[in-house]
Amino acid sequence: MNNPQLDRNGQLKHLLSIEGLPRAILNQILDTAESFTGVSEREVKKVPLLRGKTVCNIFFENSTRTRTTFELAAKRLSADVVSLNVGTSSQSKGETILDTVDNLIAMHADMFVIRHAQSGAAHFIAQHVPADIHVINAGDGRHSHPTQGLLDVFTIRRYKPDMHNLRVAIVGDVLHSRVARSEIHALTTLGVPEVRVIAPKTLLPTDVEKLGVQVYHDMRAGLKDVDVVMMLRLQNERMSGALLPSSQEYFKCYGLTQDKLALARPDAIVMHPGPMNRGVEIDSAVADGNQSVILPQVTYGIAVRMAVMSILAGNTEAA
Amino acid sequence: MNNPQLDRNGQLKHLLSIEGLPRAILNQILDTAESFTGVSEREVKKVPLLRGKTVCNIFFENSTRTRTTFELAAKRLSADVVSLNVGTSSQSKGETILDTVDNLIAMHADMFVIRHAQSGAAHFIAQHVPADIHVINAGDGRHSHPTQGLLDVFTIRRYKPDMHNLRVAIVGDVLHSRVARSEIHALTTLGVPEVRVIAPKTLLPTDVEKLGVQVYHDMRAGLKDVDVVMMLRLQNERMSGALLPSSQEYFKCYGLTQDKLALARPDAIVMHPGPMNRGVEIDSAVADGNQSVILPQVTYGIAVRMAVMSILAGNTEAA
Amino acid sequence: MNNPQLDRNGQLKHLLSIEGLPRAILNQILDTAESFTGVSEREVKKVPLLRGKTVCNIFFENSTRTRTTFELAAKRLSADVVSLNVGTSSQSKGETILDTVDNLIAMHADMFVIRHAQSGAAHFIAQHVPADIHVINAGDGRHSHPTQGLLDVFTIRRYKPDMHNLRVAIVGDVLHSRVARSEIHALTTLGVPEVRVIAPKTLLPTDVEKLGVQVYHDMRAGLKDVDVVMMLRLQNERMSGALLPSSQEYFKCYGLTQDKLALARPDAIVMHPGPMNRGVEIDSAVADGNQSVILPQVTYGIAVRMAVMSILAGNTEAA
Repeated sequence: MNNPQLDRNGQLKHLLSIEGLPRAILNQILDTAESFTGVSEREVKKVPLLRGKTVCNIFFENSTRTRTTFELAAKRLSADVVSLNVGTSSQSKGETILDTVDNLIAMHADMFVIRHAQSGAAHFIAQHVPADIHVINAGDGRHSHPTQGLLDVFTIRRYKPDMHNLRVAIVGDVLHSRVARSEIHALTTLGVPEVRVIAPKTLLPTDVEKLGVQVYHDMRAGLKDVDVVMMLRLQNERMSGALLPSSQEYFKCYGLTQDKLALARPDAIVMHPGPMNRGVEIDSAVADGNQSVILPQVTYGIAVRMAVMSILAGNTEAA
Repeated sequence: MNNPQLDRNGQLKHLLSIEGLPRAILNQILDTAESFTGVSEREVKKVPLLRGKTVCNIFFENSTRTRTTFELAAKRLSADVVSLNVGTSSQSKGETILDTVDNLIAMHADMFVIRHAQSGAAHFIAQHVPADIHVINAGDGRHSHPTQGLLDVFTIRRYKPDMHNLRVAIVGDVLHSRVARSEIHALTTLGVPEVRVIAPKTLLPTDVEKLGVQVYHDMRAGLKDVDVVMMLRLQNERMSGALLPSSQEYFKCYGLTQDKLALARPDAIVMHPGPMNRGVEIDSAVADGNQSVILPQVTYGIAVRMAVMSILAGNTEAA
Repeated sequence: MNNPQLDRNGQLKHLLSIEGLPRAILNQILDTAESFTGVSEREVKKVPLLRGKTVCNIFFENSTRTRTTFELAAKRLSADVVSLNVGTSSQSKGETILDTVDNLIAMHADMFVIRHAQSGAAHFIAQHVPADIHVINAGDGRHSHPTQGLLDVFTIRRYKPDMHNLRVAIVGDVLHSRVARSEIHALTTLGVPEVRVIAPKTLLPTDVEKLGVQVYHDMRAGLKDVDVVMMLRLQNERMSGALLPSSQEYFKCYGLTQDKLALARPDAIVMHPGPMNRGVEIDSAVADGNQSVILPQVTYGIAVRMAVMSILAGNTEAA
């Protein structure tokens, strides 16, 4: 079977989704990220690994936050960065996207970071580019957002290195999450024996048990003795819709409070992909509390993105 | 007669329009661009020729595509680049444009890349700046877009080096084109013996024959035995206007198909400045076919812009 | 008393407002700026003082002009610059601003340049960041815009080094000015014996005399024998409001003309923070005349911003 993310030697060629990454590649990315965590703490937080390379951020969907992390990661690798905000309105047809991409290839771009509202956009572009050009999916529709998934797994591994002895709970809107599904896959691949999802039925995909997880609708039961609590963001548009009664009601049932967190293991860590809706899916006391690793996630996000870009460019270690 | 583009020694000082460039300067730009084509193919695609110089892109009219090419060219020359999108709405008076420019001069900008909807804007600014500051016209109204013209000529010279033995056909909306007129001038200056324009009467300037071209209203007759087919972009606003019946009708008469292209010489090249309206002025089979040099045009566009910036900064060769 | 701008050794930690800066620090900034004036005139106008540092421009309020000056200053110090335009609409709550800032801190930003429509925003952020991160206020509400104030003082010192023998007149909308109040403070601190304000009552704060200035409502009387005329910008929204009869009327009473300027000392300099309303607060003949130092102010603005960033990063001299 042909894996669009790997070249014929089994090396990473594009990063499109966590699904389909062999365990060896997953570990390669996490280990390389480890070597990059130091770079951003140096006096001169810059390595010349991508000097003279051109990284193009093509954002068909606006996301200042994600764009900033990729821009910073590329600049710390000494790449030249060009960012294009391409409104989806002016770019509705598939051919036009390819014409845009072809033009940037003709300008000798080396790497594309793609954000698009439609699932599969990054795959579509990856199939199209020549062999020496690399594509990173920075979020496509509900489908995938692999660097977010990787930084979450990296964070877990950093705080809980013995992954064969972990209970992880993923809480909230699994149905619309870009990352929950990938993370379940990655955690299972890396040997985590027990992954739970905690959510109301309306926010779970119908086939969720098939992913090898245990399903809880009661948050208190689900949090019992877990080592990691991964909160998902509840998007505003869900709150006013038919799926949920109200944000207050949601907070009461599925918002993470100190009280509920006390049911997890005393050294459990709390994660959130940001931006947070304080008082909806998470209480401020927990978000800012000493079990929270939400800001370290952001820090590791830079290291993971540097690692991915560096591996795609043919390097495997921070200089 | 005073040529605003040349200094007192006859060296290039500003690039405002192809008209007025002596043949020696035209050839200097094309030869220098030749030496830059290699830079973008290197591992480290960067030369230090503009290190520590500040290039200001001032775009009074938005054009992501053109801005990106100048930004990339400047970064590959190691310049610092500052891009300003100045809405024309907030900048209606001439004095205010000059105040904006004066401020950037006071910040020690070295080079201005100007895009403006009004003809003559770049000339106006060039007259105003002190002697050590250089202005590049990146498109002003219908008037001029000299780097586009130069990259087209460069592309022709690359594929058809014997310019004294060429037939070139320019097809489409010559009337509203920023470049067609300049290109006719450049090709004639460089010795091309036969330039044809092919278009309906409504899309031709009244004095077009005076430019030394042969006029065809019938595309099949006009394409007969040509070596180069330069398609022009048909702007959407023309299609719905009084000038043209419909885009389907236009495609039937003046759209380039394989069928019509077969009338040209078998080794004829097909050019288009982009972005293309596939199915309006050009058929996809031709745009993506093996006679198309549309993407090489984009590649050479970077080399030509690097050459112009480099010459203006006092260098004549890629390092 | 705790000074939020100084660390425990009395060194500059944040630049939030001119008020509260001891005279030694004021002089340190001005002297360091002096050493940077040369950098922007070099062939290679770049020093490596901030190489590998990340400067984040967070603009909650749009200001292309101010953003450009900080971006250029940071790039000439070799910093990596990330600019975020954060619309105030999507960021109405204080907590959310802190979440944005916390994320950028987690990405290892070294310096924040903050522009916000609300007074005290930069102070608020400065209180929040860890000890090794520095905040520069780039304008908050009517409150403060310290680098503008510093560049004005720097300009005065450059042209009129003997500050103990100066008469300075500040003319116009003192009430709504971000800088007038700070400048009065700085000039007094640096030993200027006589500062005058010239404005109609409606554009003066009620307690203005307490700042140690002489108040004039008649411009001709106020300009008599001054060495420095600092014009303030009249914002458009004031002109149509109840505070002023009309812009023509304002120009007649408080617009600076050659005629009125003749009342000042023959070697008096004319300053304006830009952008100018020509024909409202200043006549073009004066703005472009030989007593005007309005463009040198812009030039010195880069040097002052480089100096502030450099001092905050722990350096005190241009390389």
